[in-house]
Amino acid sequence: MYRPQNLRVPGPTFVPQAVLAASARPMINHRGPEFAALLAGVTRALQDFLRTQGDVLLLTSSGSGGMEAAIANTLCAGDRVLSFSNGAFGERFAAIAKAYGVDLRRIDVPYGRAIEPDLVRDELAREKAGKDGVRAVIVTHNETSTGILNPLKEISAVVREADKLLIVDSVSGAGAAELEIDAWGIDVCITASQKAWGAPPGIAMVTMSERAWKAYERSTLPKAYFDLMSYKTSLEKGQTPATPANTVVIALQEALRLMAEEGLDAILRRHRDLARATRRGIAALGLSLFADEAHASPAVTAFRPPARVEPRNLIRVLRDDYNTIIAPGQGKMDGQLCRVGHLGFVTLTDIVAFLSALELALRDFNQPVEPGQGIAAALRAYGEQQQLAKAAVPSRR
Amino acid sequence: MYRPQNLRVPGPTFVPQAVLAASARPMINHRGPEFAALLAGVTRALQDFLRTQGDVLLLTSSGSGGMEAAIANTLCAGDRVLSFSNGAFGERFAAIAKAYGVDLRRIDVPYGRAIEPDLVRDELAREKAGKDGVRAVIVTHNETSTGILNPLKEISAVVREADKLLIVDSVSGAGAAELEIDAWGIDVCITASQKAWGAPPGIAMVTMSERAWKAYERSTLPKAYFDLMSYKTSLEKGQTPATPANTVVIALQEALRLMAEEGLDAILRRHRDLARATRRGIAALGLSLFADEAHASPAVTAFRPPARVEPRNLIRVLRDDYNTIIAPGQGKMDGQLCRVGHLGFVTLTDIVAFLSALELALRDFNQPVEPGQGIAAALRAYGEQQQLAKAAVPSRR
Repeated sequence: MYRPQNLRVPGPTFVPQAVLAASARPMINHRGPEFAALLAGVTRALQDFLRTQGDVLLLTSSGSGGMEAAIANTLCAGDRVLSFSNGAFGERFAAIAKAYGVDLRRIDVPYGRAIEPDLVRDELAREKAGKDGVRAVIVTHNETSTGILNPLKEISAVVREADKLLIVDSVSGAGAAELEIDAWGIDVCITASQKAWGAPPGIAMVTMSERAWKAYERSTLPKAYFDLMSYKTSLEKGQTPATPANTVVIALQEALRLMAEEGLDAILRRHRDLARATRRGIAALGLSLFADEAHASPAVTAFRPPARVEPRNLIRVLRDDYNTIIAPGQGKMDGQLCRVGHLGFVTLTDIVAFLSALELALRDFNQPVEPGQGIAAALRAYGEQQQLAKAAVPSRR
Repeated sequence: MYRPQNLRVPGPTFVPQAVLAASARPMINHRGPEFAALLAGVTRALQDFLRTQGDVLLLTSSGSGGMEAAIANTLCAGDRVLSFSNGAFGERFAAIAKAYGVDLRRIDVPYGRAIEPDLVRDELAREKAGKDGVRAVIVTHNETSTGILNPLKEISAVVREADKLLIVDSVSGAGAAELEIDAWGIDVCITASQKAWGAPPGIAMVTMSERAWKAYERSTLPKAYFDLMSYKTSLEKGQTPATPANTVVIALQEALRLMAEEGLDAILRRHRDLARATRRGIAALGLSLFADEAHASPAVTAFRPPARVEPRNLIRVLRDDYNTIIAPGQGKMDGQLCRVGHLGFVTLTDIVAFLSALELALRDFNQPVEPGQGIAAALRAYGEQQQLAKAAVPSRR
């Protein structure tokens, strides 16, 4: 049955036909010149998009594997680490570090609120008074579970000032939100192919700064598959240490080509504008947005359904009756939230389609919603942004 | 330029068009009912092919990641482990275990020879005399670097008799060679999507016996991404702990469907017959086969080029002039061997095409080879097998 879906989970994201087709090319040798050229090209393109001259290493794993690599390659058991968390992925990162015996203190910020730079400064100062020095700070860039974009530029400045290793989960942030690996001084940053990059899942990308490589030299945690030095030395030969998910790398190459045509600035503007339109549309339907508006994510929006509508029922009706796939709450927000992804190759049409489905589904639950009510607000918000953008550039006449 | 390749490395293997096309279907949610059905179906099919009622867990990683999972989930730092090795992959497995602080003793068998069950028995007996008990035995099923199929059935019997945990790298063996996980008493076994399964790389499959889960309970090695219990509990909900390489899982489903149509017995016979034909063809060209014929692999054949021909030059000419991709020697056999893969969706035509290319390439190096010389021997060998097979079944008349 032909039932095209509007895949609006915050990853895996929609994969364009050209990218899917690229991934279905005949299989190639992963130790030959074709793969070497592919790997070099993808690495260069990622360096451009991540704004770094440093290493970008491609692991065959999910983003969580990349997060584990970040820990295992830069720390020792017993190292003091501060982990700032405002959602399920912050908690996951802390749990990974704890599994490796790191002496981790997790500072929790309420879900739906941002990690403020002042909090990071205060907690680092508090640690200074203690006997052991903090080795590293772990922070989430875009918290996918709540729809918060943490102010990473300002947080990075605080961590750089304190001269600590800065490890960032930007799995769902990179490519959707501003991110300057080198300029902001981020030491290790993780992202993944199935998020804003619009490729299938299977490849995690990890950046390593010079400071991170110094930390590697000192690190004694066990690592084999995730030993980043083996990826660095293999990359110099145009290879990966073990067999890579090469069809995903080919897909990623095509996705990066499409992204380069659009340009990073336009991509970030598109994410910001469509995210705002999504929020305005949802709010116009009388639903409450979960995240602090000042730090609302350009990649994902979390909202609460009306009082007497169970999130999982709304999600099921959207899926079964309107072919629209959104995500539930995660961790302690399980059963409380709905989350709609708008990262990667997303267009205004996708947002309108999502709001169409949401409007009809809410009516199915006997909610007082007029058809077009959310869409109108979304289009108005989007139109305003386009007017502002036009006003900002000289007229063509 | 249209230059179809005869991809004859021992993985990634040739991927059929139907499998590639399946991997290019529109992206799906990895937390929805479609993926749950997909994962359940693939798991069941793998249980059938691996001949196990136990757990088969799908990790998004290469086979090496699965090998690391096997170690991290069943052992503790300091555990005494015997590792039998007759090639580069045996050495890799030992290195992974050592990275985790296991007290490993590696017993090396000369490259090109098999690991004999008596050696395993003797070494286990020798350890018994020592103070600490051996916890586990690590062994490679099909040694991809040399083209040896170790006699795993007999080795397993020895290890079961000694009641040790048996961890098997069958990354390139499973699906190409006889393998009875339950009947032989194998506790942990690793294979990977890009080998005999004929899917793209990106998914490692790991089996776990009841004994292996008991070892898990005791294991204290750090694990997060590779924590197999999290895969087991997620599987019960039709999910994986982190985002899986779902396009590779879809491809694997289609590949397993094609394999089920052929049937495991026919697949194993095809591998055995084509491997024999390949060896006869290579030998008829005056080249020397590297592996002990009694233990020659059904998945890969290693051979030495003529005396004055550098392996990498032969491999380059095969690639550049005849679109035939084979692999060089690995590890300490680097620069000494050529290796041709014949696992997965391989047909007689592929072997004939390989030998055609090899004959012409050898002539380019001024070797005394008549066109058709190797092919004739291969066809003769293949024909003999078909005659024997026909003689073994009752006549259709």
